Amino acid sequence: MTWQLTVDDLDDLARGATLLGTGGGGDPYIGRLMVQRAIEQNGSITIMDPDELPDEITVIPTAQMGAPTVIMERIPAGTEPVDALRALEKYTGRIAEATMPIECGGINSMIPLLVGAQTGLPVVDADGMGRAFPELQMETFNVYGVQGSPLAIADEVGHSFIVDTADDTPKMEWLARGATIRLGGAAHIAEYTMTGRQAKDTAVPRTITLALKAGRALRQARESHGDVISILSAALNDTLYNKVVPLFEGKVVDVERTTDRGFTLGHALFTADDGGELRITFQNENLVAVRDGQIVAGVPDLICVLEADTAEPITTERLRFGQRVRVIGISTPDMMRTPEALNVFGPSCFGLDHEFVPVEDSAVR
Amino acid sequence: MTWQLTVDDLDDLARGATLLGTGGGGDPYIGRLMVQRAIEQNGSITIMDPDELPDEITVIPTAQMGAPTVIMERIPAGTEPVDALRALEKYTGRIAEATMPIECGGINSMIPLLVGAQTGLPVVDADGMGRAFPELQMETFNVYGVQGSPLAIADEVGHSFIVDTADDTPKMEWLARGATIRLGGAAHIAEYTMTGRQAKDTAVPRTITLALKAGRALRQARESHGDVISILSAALNDTLYNKVVPLFEGKVVDVERTTDRGFTLGHALFTADDGGELRITFQNENLVAVRDGQIVAGVPDLICVLEADTAEPITTERLRFGQRVRVIGISTPDMMRTPEALNVFGPSCFGLDHEFVPVEDSAVR
Repeated sequence: MTWQLTVDDLDDLARGATLLGTGGGGDPYIGRLMVQRAIEQNGSITIMDPDELPDEITVIPTAQMGAPTVIMERIPAGTEPVDALRALEKYTGRIAEATMPIECGGINSMIPLLVGAQTGLPVVDADGMGRAFPELQMETFNVYGVQGSPLAIADEVGHSFIVDTADDTPKMEWLARGATIRLGGAAHIAEYTMTGRQAKDTAVPRTITLALKAGRALRQARESHGDVISILSAALNDTLYNKVVPLFEGKVVDVERTTDRGFTLGHALFTADDGGELRITFQNENLVAVRDGQIVAGVPDLICVLEADTAEPITTERLRFGQRVRVIGISTPDMMRTPEALNVFGPSCFGLDHEFVPVEDSAVR
Repeated sequence: MTWQLTVDDLDDLARGATLLGTGGGGDPYIGRLMVQRAIEQNGSITIMDPDELPDEITVIPTAQMGAPTVIMERIPAGTEPVDALRALEKYTGRIAEATMPIECGGINSMIPLLVGAQTGLPVVDADGMGRAFPELQMETFNVYGVQGSPLAIADEVGHSFIVDTADDTPKMEWLARGATIRLGGAAHIAEYTMTGRQAKDTAVPRTITLALKAGRALRQARESHGDVISILSAALNDTLYNKVVPLFEGKVVDVERTTDRGFTLGHALFTADDGGELRITFQNENLVAVRDGQIVAGVPDLICVLEADTAEPITTERLRFGQRVRVIGISTPDMMRTPEALNVFGPSCFGLDHEFVPVEDSAVR
């Protein structure tokens, strides 16, 4: 069902997007403020259900790229995503009839909404990661046959970049990352130009709705002082993310975090009152969680850190020594767990040497 | 006068271009072989005198960019410069009616000839540096008002990049350099799209002819065992480079050379039999020559190292301990020594804290 997104949805959406950012994705705070102002100026945003997308229309996803540590501190002008979209249209000659998120976690839940509000384009209720991932080739779009290139990058003074690597999407990422680093560590992009048919065939469906549901559930858990696992489980029960698994309760004892090669890299260590420990390794996003020497969750499944008292999701760059947290795992849709998908964003794609084990299986070991 | 360049010109041209590369510019050896093959396949190349350029035609210069140390070791496919030209034409909608060197030293004397031979486009007998310089904003085109951006970069598998920074030419260099580094340290470019009128107003004229004359003179000096200074002086007497100044005779005692930030950086030290010493600092090209603590030549004037026996110019990456050399300075045209020009490629642009002193004045101190 196609629906209208209003200012009232934004708090829950941002909270849900932070959860789906699995520690990364870039803090959606500033993006949410920009979307709010754009809606106040231009009216609500049309969120188009993928089932209702005409096959022939042109969909151009829009996003921000960069290290979350930089994104948090660098305020965009607000014109960049549309500039990137227009630069790509100029280069390809294909005019966008809808935009779409490339990832449903973090800041990139907001950027396509900003484009929708500023241009009047509908935003497809779907995305290419089903969460947040650190690199541009890590897209279901790419897994299922859409070319990422050409890509356009725009900065806050209207300068732009076109990267055209034909069918070599990892090289597109490599070159775009280099440009982003030279632009100061964050920039806005348009890429993966596709048809409505391709969007239906390759995107993870209804993930804007998913973020809204998840954010609403976390708020309800906080307001009702109820159990976050059961409330979130109930909310996600009719989605493709229907297994919510408790992984750990404890406090932050160590965070090591560097910004390198254009990414936020490092790990976080948590200990429980009974002496157990959990270690999470991240590249922008949480990649793998190891409890007492045993892997309990790993990419592409979601590893989410919640503040124990408030059930608010905490991004990696906001983790602080002594915070009491609850760590949960959430299963991802089947289309993100196929051999082709694991080939693009499974553990080996991050240099991890373990096989993927679904969070619902590994956590009970 | 417009003339035809044939295979017979290439040896002298390459030698002269190496001299004008002032230690850098990228070794023209491989470029010369590629031009030779292209001429053999397609016939001679039309070299167009700038005075005969129609005002309204579109001129798109073509070049290679990268660290000379990388350029020497990396063999291009030969398709890159035309790919870059075509990518820029596609982006701007302006079709090249001539190409032109951006620099007359080193490999970039050859790249536009390759484009000319492959496409049939005439090559303008002029360039934008009047020598070789390490960065793309260091162009008389830029000094006298032509925008460098947009720029296209192409690599050996046909992937391309467009950098569009409007009137911010230094930022174009910064972003293009980043792309070149990520492409392995060398790539081919098209940039500074201009009219025939702009080429006449901003380019250093007749520098292909200049390179030919200089290369021929060096060959004659070798073949006749004559004095290279007087033979070269006589050959350049009717050009804009009419002061040839002996700076030093001695041997190489130290070369420190690193490839960093996409450039070849370092210095070379020479000693004379009488104990005097000369130190040359370079960033791709020779920047400044200090003899016994006194600056005797500096950018934009030319500092050229010749092998003592053969009068062959030696590039920085070919300097070896014990080589016996003759170091000479050559004056540059007035248009390269104006305050505006020194603002773009004078000593301060390389972090050097001395004022520019013409080589013909400083060397006699």
